[in-house]
Amino acid sequence: MSDETTVSRRSFLKRASAALAAGGVGAVAGGVGLSLATGEQRAEAEVEWPLPYTSLDPDVVRVRGHANYYKGECCYGAFSAILETLREEVGGPYNEIPSEMMYFGGGGIAGWGTTCGALIGSCSAMSLVAADKEVAKALANELLGWYSTTALPTDVANQFAIDAQYTAEMKAAGALEQSTAGSPLCHVSVSNWCEASGFASKSPERAERCARLVGDTAAKAVELLNAQFANGALEPGFTFSDEALGCMSCHFLGENFEAGQFTQGKGECTSCHGTMEEAHSPSS
Amino acid sequence: MSDETTVSRRSFLKRASAALAAGGVGAVAGGVGLSLATGEQRAEAEVEWPLPYTSLDPDVVRVRGHANYYKGECCYGAFSAILETLREEVGGPYNEIPSEMMYFGGGGIAGWGTTCGALIGSCSAMSLVAADKEVAKALANELLGWYSTTALPTDVANQFAIDAQYTAEMKAAGALEQSTAGSPLCHVSVSNWCEASGFASKSPERAERCARLVGDTAAKAVELLNAQFANGALEPGFTFSDEALGCMSCHFLGENFEAGQFTQGKGECTSCHGTMEEAHSPSS
Repeated sequence: MSDETTVSRRSFLKRASAALAAGGVGAVAGGVGLSLATGEQRAEAEVEWPLPYTSLDPDVVRVRGHANYYKGECCYGAFSAILETLREEVGGPYNEIPSEMMYFGGGGIAGWGTTCGALIGSCSAMSLVAADKEVAKALANELLGWYSTTALPTDVANQFAIDAQYTAEMKAAGALEQSTAGSPLCHVSVSNWCEASGFASKSPERAERCARLVGDTAAKAVELLNAQFANGALEPGFTFSDEALGCMSCHFLGENFEAGQFTQGKGECTSCHGTMEEAHSPSS
Repeated sequence: MSDETTVSRRSFLKRASAALAAGGVGAVAGGVGLSLATGEQRAEAEVEWPLPYTSLDPDVVRVRGHANYYKGECCYGAFSAILETLREEVGGPYNEIPSEMMYFGGGGIAGWGTTCGALIGSCSAMSLVAADKEVAKALANELLGWYSTTALPTDVANQFAIDAQYTAEMKAAGALEQSTAGSPLCHVSVSNWCEASGFASKSPERAERCARLVGDTAAKAVELLNAQFANGALEPGFTFSDEALGCMSCHFLGENFEAGQFTQGKGECTSCHGTMEEAHSPSS
């Protein structure tokens, strides 16, 4: 993989060199960009995917995720925590991808409460280095499963707060209440935590909870990547409840409408649909 | 913005030029990348954000979105449709961002049915060029609102199919049934469409519906960007229902837990929670 990267950077430098030789620095810099100047525009990316990966320290990423949440919210926070660490450890192509591309994702995308931004940001970063599409989806599947079934913020995150390991000023001190979302959705995750803690959604405590959760999620993503690259495969770490598996035995992405295959989704169905009896009642 | 962009590219070329002067092309190209060769690894990106934008043809993006859905599913399809068009029209920095970073997002992220991948991919692309974080979120807000309240696939998409405007082989011909999701979630969007059309979730018709929807969503994103850059501001094009506005008058990101501010979210609340009476009943 690093060989491919070297080739990619080499071809890039070759183009830069040709452009500089042809027009001189001043002439080219006056244009709107390198590719325009050399007339080499095309729809395919020049950079070779996947980008190179090296094992990262999850706790470095955890501290960055916490700090960067306060700079640009959850989606930016998680993505930038991983990208900045890759810039330090690998450099090269990671310097060309602006973390601000994840600004949209705060509060489950612009406050809509859809997918937790920490998941979108982390999955985007993981997909940069995944070996292929199936690996990218397997990594994402594992992260969403972990998120849905884990009490967050983790004990590690709370201990980091107590031990003053975070670099950003915390909006709330000490250990924070934990809750398990049962869902990858911001709306469910935040509501469950507010219910568990008694804090309002715009409280400093809720913000600090999300900052720690961003660090936790980005750190977990790096743990998954480290394991994937060390072992060549993921060891699945979560399972759905028997109840959810029951729902999904009929309702899956399938070809038989009458048998219930009229939807797409995975997760703890009852968190929105109630019990099987409730979901199947004529009024539902 | 174009001034800033010119500066950005100029400073980039200055660095490239310095590296070439210092080591010669061969020496630098033998390293693992420009930044490593010059010892410039650091956590901040080298590329200047926002990236330059120029008005794009929504119909070019629509056709690409449809085709690229079949190459890498919805999230990749929408993102790559915009990125490839920007590579052709602008080039430069867009050649350094691999569209494969959106592979995770198919089927509402790895088939979980969370946020529609076409929205995640389109919002990521819009945030690459947004003037600041608030503009990135305003663009995303508008796209999610449009998606939730629009009958999809659009008439335009269906007419493109009838007129053989798509470049990829379609899995189903002619006009397809339309449905309005009332939600940005894949799970809701796909279920509503299957119910409206009578097709199963893994039918060729459902795949083709999603391919057209990806084209529609990426094209809408480009329309929003074109308007934003032409006018300097968005003209909001959707409103929530009176019922949803009623819900959100109490349940918003606020500081008063007892008044109902224990959640984060926007949207048509009743699509999951039922009527106000049902949502406020003791058993809910």
